[in-house]
Amino acid sequence: MLGAAAALVRSVGGADYRLPHTGAGAGVGIPAAAVTAEDADLIAHLTQQGPVAMRLVLTPQTLPDVLSHNVIADLKGSEHPEQVVIVSGHLDSWDLRTGAIDDAAGVAVAMQVAHLCKLLGLIPRRTLRVVAWMNEENGSAGSRRYLGEYEASMRDHVGAIESDLGAGHPLGFIGIFNPSARASLRQITSVLAPIGATIVEATEYAGADINAMARHGVPVFGLMQDERTYFNYHHTAADTLDKIVPQELAENAAVMAVLGFALADMPQPLPRSTGPQ
Amino acid sequence: MLGAAAALVRSVGGADYRLPHTGAGAGVGIPAAAVTAEDADLIAHLTQQGPVAMRLVLTPQTLPDVLSHNVIADLKGSEHPEQVVIVSGHLDSWDLRTGAIDDAAGVAVAMQVAHLCKLLGLIPRRTLRVVAWMNEENGSAGSRRYLGEYEASMRDHVGAIESDLGAGHPLGFIGIFNPSARASLRQITSVLAPIGATIVEATEYAGADINAMARHGVPVFGLMQDERTYFNYHHTAADTLDKIVPQELAENAAVMAVLGFALADMPQPLPRSTGPQ
Repeated sequence: MLGAAAALVRSVGGADYRLPHTGAGAGVGIPAAAVTAEDADLIAHLTQQGPVAMRLVLTPQTLPDVLSHNVIADLKGSEHPEQVVIVSGHLDSWDLRTGAIDDAAGVAVAMQVAHLCKLLGLIPRRTLRVVAWMNEENGSAGSRRYLGEYEASMRDHVGAIESDLGAGHPLGFIGIFNPSARASLRQITSVLAPIGATIVEATEYAGADINAMARHGVPVFGLMQDERTYFNYHHTAADTLDKIVPQELAENAAVMAVLGFALADMPQPLPRSTGPQ
Repeated sequence: MLGAAAALVRSVGGADYRLPHTGAGAGVGIPAAAVTAEDADLIAHLTQQGPVAMRLVLTPQTLPDVLSHNVIADLKGSEHPEQVVIVSGHLDSWDLRTGAIDDAAGVAVAMQVAHLCKLLGLIPRRTLRVVAWMNEENGSAGSRRYLGEYEASMRDHVGAIESDLGAGHPLGFIGIFNPSARASLRQITSVLAPIGATIVEATEYAGADINAMARHGVPVFGLMQDERTYFNYHHTAADTLDKIVPQELAENAAVMAVLGFALADMPQPLPRSTGPQ
């Protein structure tokens, strides 16, 4: 350590409404806080004029852990109920506001996958598992616990999808998958051409709660979304329901439903993931 | 009174960052507060489900008046120093933030009028009076006091201009003036064609600090500005210097300087105002 008394981080995102955009500290044992872009500008300006003294009054509390739960619902597969495709978002949110885009939207979209199957009378060959992960924001305890409990059956997990980048217009998917799966994925997403969501892009990070499953060979996918305004609202007091456009939320549900159902219903599962390409 | 315990006002303006946009209360003897658009939506939504109880914790204080001052500087006229053209903004601001667009920008623009005349070596026939009005936000005590003190010499006030709508690109002027002055005004503003600020529009409200002078026959003018984002920031914590575009601030200075200098230097003053047309 170089003797810093505290760390202040300029808020990320494009909002220019003096909105602090919070996040986890660097975890180096000193107080840390988010500063609005405007105030960061002011501080930078003042430092050019000479030494700047600041008095910080930070009031966060780290409370003891409490018992909480992932919320899981299965739409049982007709032929291979033991084989699972996860469709998911995370249930917890940052504490400043309701967390509508981070990540109530993801949970709603995952729930819609099962709901749409019900509406359409579709039962896939494998099980569609809707998961609302707990504690994504503060260490991913929920998904880590799930992976611990289900490690032995990761072979039966044939795919996992998470939406955690808001509810903007979807463009397709990012994923960690076997390169030989690309043709099948292209065929699946071709169904989504009418809403312009046909992209399938290899990535190293598909979602906080599902990424670790890739190390077990599970093909994992994140929704690729129009995130241009996402970080204006993410982890701010302005992450409220009005930021979600119903039409775009429905598009995201359609996108996750198409990929989730296809992975659960295709004659042979996708080849196992070989990790980031 | 109909028995209301308090009044909550939905914040005006187009900002969607959960930003309360404050203002003066209705003055009817009950507590009043501004609610963000998001929270107003939530409250409206809840009221559709049944009675809504709210607990308000409002902490404003009305402190005793203190002595403060208008700040006035004269660039003395060469031929008729007793005749005055006021160029102005207001010095005070709402208490949430620095008040960069409301109305430090107006004060800066008014000061620039004298500064530009100095730079260009121009001394007008009449006096250019730069005024930074005190207390516009809370009852206009500064401009009321000025009018009280100078009422007898209002005949020698041949024009007054105020900028109090931010610092967006200027389009021209609004004013309370004699219809027969229109040809002269058109001629003056034709100089501003290169920056697109040639509009001269009759109004009933030209500026909080100068409007009352129209009743004394003074031609009064407000800058017509691009105000599309003004009420996103006005009276919010986000009214900070970064909201001002230097190029647009300079345009406003040019516009006020051209009209101010012209009114102070034209061979005959504009005809006296006849009030709102």
